[in-house]
Amino acid sequence: MERPNNPIMDRQIGLSMKALDHGFVRLVDYMGDDAAICQAARVSYGTGTKSTSEDRGLIRYLMSHRHTTPFEMCEIKLHVKLPIFVARQWIRHRTANVNEYSARYSILDREFYFPEVGDIAKQSQSNKQGRELDLDDLCAEEVRAIIMHDSNRAYDSYEELVDEDGFGLARELARMVLPTNIYTQWYWKVDLHNLLHFLSLRADPHAQMEIRVYAELICDLVRQWCPQAFEAFEDYVMNAERFSRMEMEIVRALAEKAAVGTAPNFMRDLTSLGDLNLREQREFLAKLGVSE
Amino acid sequence: MERPNNPIMDRQIGLSMKALDHGFVRLVDYMGDDAAICQAARVSYGTGTKSTSEDRGLIRYLMSHRHTTPFEMCEIKLHVKLPIFVARQWIRHRTANVNEYSARYSILDREFYFPEVGDIAKQSQSNKQGRELDLDDLCAEEVRAIIMHDSNRAYDSYEELVDEDGFGLARELARMVLPTNIYTQWYWKVDLHNLLHFLSLRADPHAQMEIRVYAELICDLVRQWCPQAFEAFEDYVMNAERFSRMEMEIVRALAEKAAVGTAPNFMRDLTSLGDLNLREQREFLAKLGVSE
Amino acid sequence: MERPNNPIMDRQIGLSMKALDHGFVRLVDYMGDDAAICQAARVSYGTGTKSTSEDRGLIRYLMSHRHTTPFEMCEIKLHVKLPIFVARQWIRHRTANVNEYSARYSILDREFYFPEVGDIAKQSQSNKQGRELDLDDLCAEEVRAIIMHDSNRAYDSYEELVDEDGFGLARELARMVLPTNIYTQWYWKVDLHNLLHFLSLRADPHAQMEIRVYAELICDLVRQWCPQAFEAFEDYVMNAERFSRMEMEIVRALAEKAAVGTAPNFMRDLTSLGDLNLREQREFLAKLGVSE
Amino acid sequence: MERPNNPIMDRQIGLSMKALDHGFVRLVDYMGDDAAICQAARVSYGTGTKSTSEDRGLIRYLMSHRHTTPFEMCEIKLHVKLPIFVARQWIRHRTANVNEYSARYSILDREFYFPEVGDIAKQSQSNKQGRELDLDDLCAEEVRAIIMHDSNRAYDSYEELVDEDGFGLARELARMVLPTNIYTQWYWKVDLHNLLHFLSLRADPHAQMEIRVYAELICDLVRQWCPQAFEAFEDYVMNAERFSRMEMEIVRALAEKAAVGTAPNFMRDLTSLGDLNLREQREFLAKLGVSE
Repeated sequence: MERPNNPIMDRQIGLSMKALDHGFVRLVDYMGDDAAICQAARVSYGTGTKSTSEDRGLIRYLMSHRHTTPFEMCEIKLHVKLPIFVARQWIRHRTANVNEYSARYSILDREFYFPEVGDIAKQSQSNKQGRELDLDDLCAEEVRAIIMHDSNRAYDSYEELVDEDGFGLARELARMVLPTNIYTQWYWKVDLHNLLHFLSLRADPHAQMEIRVYAELICDLVRQWCPQAFEAFEDYVMNAERFSRMEMEIVRALAEKAAVGTAPNFMRDLTSLGDLNLREQREFLAKLGVSE
Repeated sequence: MERPNNPIMDRQIGLSMKALDHGFVRLVDYMGDDAAICQAARVSYGTGTKSTSEDRGLIRYLMSHRHTTPFEMCEIKLHVKLPIFVARQWIRHRTANVNEYSARYSILDREFYFPEVGDIAKQSQSNKQGRELDLDDLCAEEVRAIIMHDSNRAYDSYEELVDEDGFGLARELARMVLPTNIYTQWYWKVDLHNLLHFLSLRADPHAQMEIRVYAELICDLVRQWCPQAFEAFEDYVMNAERFSRMEMEIVRALAEKAAVGTAPNFMRDLTSLGDLNLREQREFLAKLGVSE
Repeated sequence: MERPNNPIMDRQIGLSMKALDHGFVRLVDYMGDDAAICQAARVSYGTGTKSTSEDRGLIRYLMSHRHTTPFEMCEIKLHVKLPIFVARQWIRHRTANVNEYSARYSILDREFYFPEVGDIAKQSQSNKQGRELDLDDLCAEEVRAIIMHDSNRAYDSYEELVDEDGFGLARELARMVLPTNIYTQWYWKVDLHNLLHFLSLRADPHAQMEIRVYAELICDLVRQWCPQAFEAFEDYVMNAERFSRMEMEIVRALAEKAAVGTAPNFMRDLTSLGDLNLREQREFLAKLGVSE
Repeated sequence: MERPNNPIMDRQIGLSMKALDHGFVRLVDYMGDDAAICQAARVSYGTGTKSTSEDRGLIRYLMSHRHTTPFEMCEIKLHVKLPIFVARQWIRHRTANVNEYSARYSILDREFYFPEVGDIAKQSQSNKQGRELDLDDLCAEEVRAIIMHDSNRAYDSYEELVDEDGFGLARELARMVLPTNIYTQWYWKVDLHNLLHFLSLRADPHAQMEIRVYAELICDLVRQWCPQAFEAFEDYVMNAERFSRMEMEIVRALAEKAAVGTAPNFMRDLTSLGDLNLREQREFLAKLGVSE
């Protein structure tokens, strides 16, 4: 047998996708593909390999029913360059392997993230952890100038502190003066299930823009790597909505109201709207408490 | 300051709740409560302690927005006695601490799970991993008799094999003849977030009945331990429904259809049905793509 | 750039290595190699690629100083067929991805582990979880006959229970009569660091022979996959010894006693015995509290 | 039964132990104690509760033989205030639960870590990630002044940026100008096994002093919480030494040399030095390859 590979991904290995002003996401290696997900799922079901179209159906079934373990059978390794404040959000995803550049050991470069004028925005009042209205351009320019000036001055101090002919301060100490918009880099390796979870949170509009940029680049990569899994992820997770028990009362009332005085097959007709297969139509009606 | 405690839970410590024929769930210890969830969440928001009613709102907000880390701040330790085939499903939940009775070291007791006649059912045809129509009582009695007879005969062999005056076979070898309905036991320690995830899968109607029995007992315990968190879990997870992108097209069509030719405040009136607070009403309408 | 690969491993993909009577370990896929470990380590140190001989030195340094994260950058996926009682020990290693054959969904084959006569042994008296003196051949034959007979009879019942023209019992129920020497199978995916930890426990002489057989096959695979990492693992973990504080008092007394009345360079001469590099010689003497 | 508690720990709840200039470690809650470790271990061995002295022996046995799961049965929750650059090292320990102060949501206080003059040291030449010779006091004063000045100026900019009557910049953006010696805080919850692993790395002399200060405070806490486990940890982990295969050749040569021409019971006499029990004496001689 041959090692499973994906020619599109193979061509990407080593290429950097630019992120923010100095950052990047670079594919280092990957393991598995859509077929590998199905292969693992089928060991559970005790059945052999099937056609690609059956693969798509299986992957969609697994995704929609939260059978997550087969998605753990794919793995990806990325080289990422990113500002420290972004790295601090990212590292909260614990189920991953990381090797980060060590500023105890080595000297960091003079590379900082300076937001574009168009990305500099006011504190949101409604969303306490977001940004909202753009600052006017003049103010934004001024903010950007402050950030640039401060960052560079901090780096001047850093250089002065670590200078071997000057203070020669230990690197593990000198680094403390550097602000969190300085770039660091790491190797990050994660399985597809945990990566999709990361993307569901970090490619979300509520994520901070600076990490979302990375998440969106990774989305593009996953779309090429495991197109069926990514399509299923978009359909059943990213573009899905969860309704609470209270909301379900309303949705059910809507369904009832819509059904009243209409043709007897109304609900059945309606379900054909959404391109659902038969099983999905049945499950949809069950969620609404409508009997077929 | 005093150690946080919950008098209702304190009274439960050491008490066994019976599960299946010989199994049990016994509370050994716990850490934290609803207030501990809020306390941890508020360190993130940089605000101090609040009233109990504000706690409820915060917990519901955290649960509905998937802010899961504060729920990890509560921990529970259970002593569980369960058949091996149930243990094999249970152990797949990896984020937990386990110490199991070792049949390499000690001799297992003659205690097997024998399903009640009413629980003995035919293979489901629609759900390939479920059971369906009940067998008639006569057949079920017969099945039960086969299981009992086989289990006991296997145990006879086990006894013969380990008998120190007989073969004196190593325990780690002798145990292999025992069927998976024999009871084992373990200490199981888990945080509340991971426990709720376990419950969402194992207290679900699709879970095998034999593990669901345990999950339901644990639900009862969590309801007493962290009543606000458990209520939020029921409202936003257990009794929630997730609609896929395709299903959302239909739900949105329902909403549109229902809104046509009705009073201008129809959707707003409708949202009051479900006992939603203002933020939730806004979020509900956003999910439906209805502007306020 | 090209995707990193290892031609020796590529040839192994899909090949089964036999384990016990009906089990196997089969390589499905892998990611990374010795160079990938160094590549990740060097991102921490901020230095570029080096020669193979420098790689060996770096890997040995990482292994001996417990810098474990670079070893997480390699991943392997295996298809394993194994008795349930072995699977139960194996699954305790939580940091891995697993998809197991589901006996809720599918029917298990009539394949059981029957130990060879030479492997059937008495309970150890000194090691309460081990086996010790071999049974005499006659007894062992008898034990084997009991195990075979019981296993097959249990399978007869299983067949009778699941027979669609008979009881048609749900598979999730019928499986409970099967003893734990029946074979199951799974896909198992793990990173190299966690795999080495697994091997340090399961390829150890104290591990039960039936799991050790699998661990030893995997050792052979890792030796081909990442030869430098495996050599370092053998030198710094598998064939290393840890001395407690109390034991260190004795070892230091030995060193002192040996040093008395000998040539002034005695300790230095001695350290050359063990093929240590200069750093290692210095560290060895430091462990003994001997100043250079 | 009563909830297990430890009166010494109960008195510590809520008390802050000062760390560095503005940091602290504060005990929030704990679960379990030495007895809980034994209780879980004994479920594996199928035996009941024993005396405290037997507990000590069991705990030492578990620790020395790497039976780590019973130590996972204890859990501790700490509130910690620490500089960001320390938090970045700390968070690499993934098997823990964390809720950190959010600078997206709230404004950080003007609190920075300024190292004491006596802690300001030059870059080590031998250890590329350490510090070495102290700077002379005059230089150190100057370094400290630079750090103080820069930190305060960065905070001035931060204040200017977030000022609601000024730029009103989003907090998630403004925070990027702050250097990594600013203090953050979090709730950190971890089980005893993973905590001891953390301590073995972070209370080690090779750890950066600024994290070691926290690790040492936590050592003091664990010594009171689980005194037997902590004593075993010191004897079998912290003050133990691991010798590689190559080093073992030398140690064995030492033992042989020391044994030559001495009384026949020399090795046996020697082992009595280190306060080893009989099992440990046997194991020690086995490590040296000396037959009894």
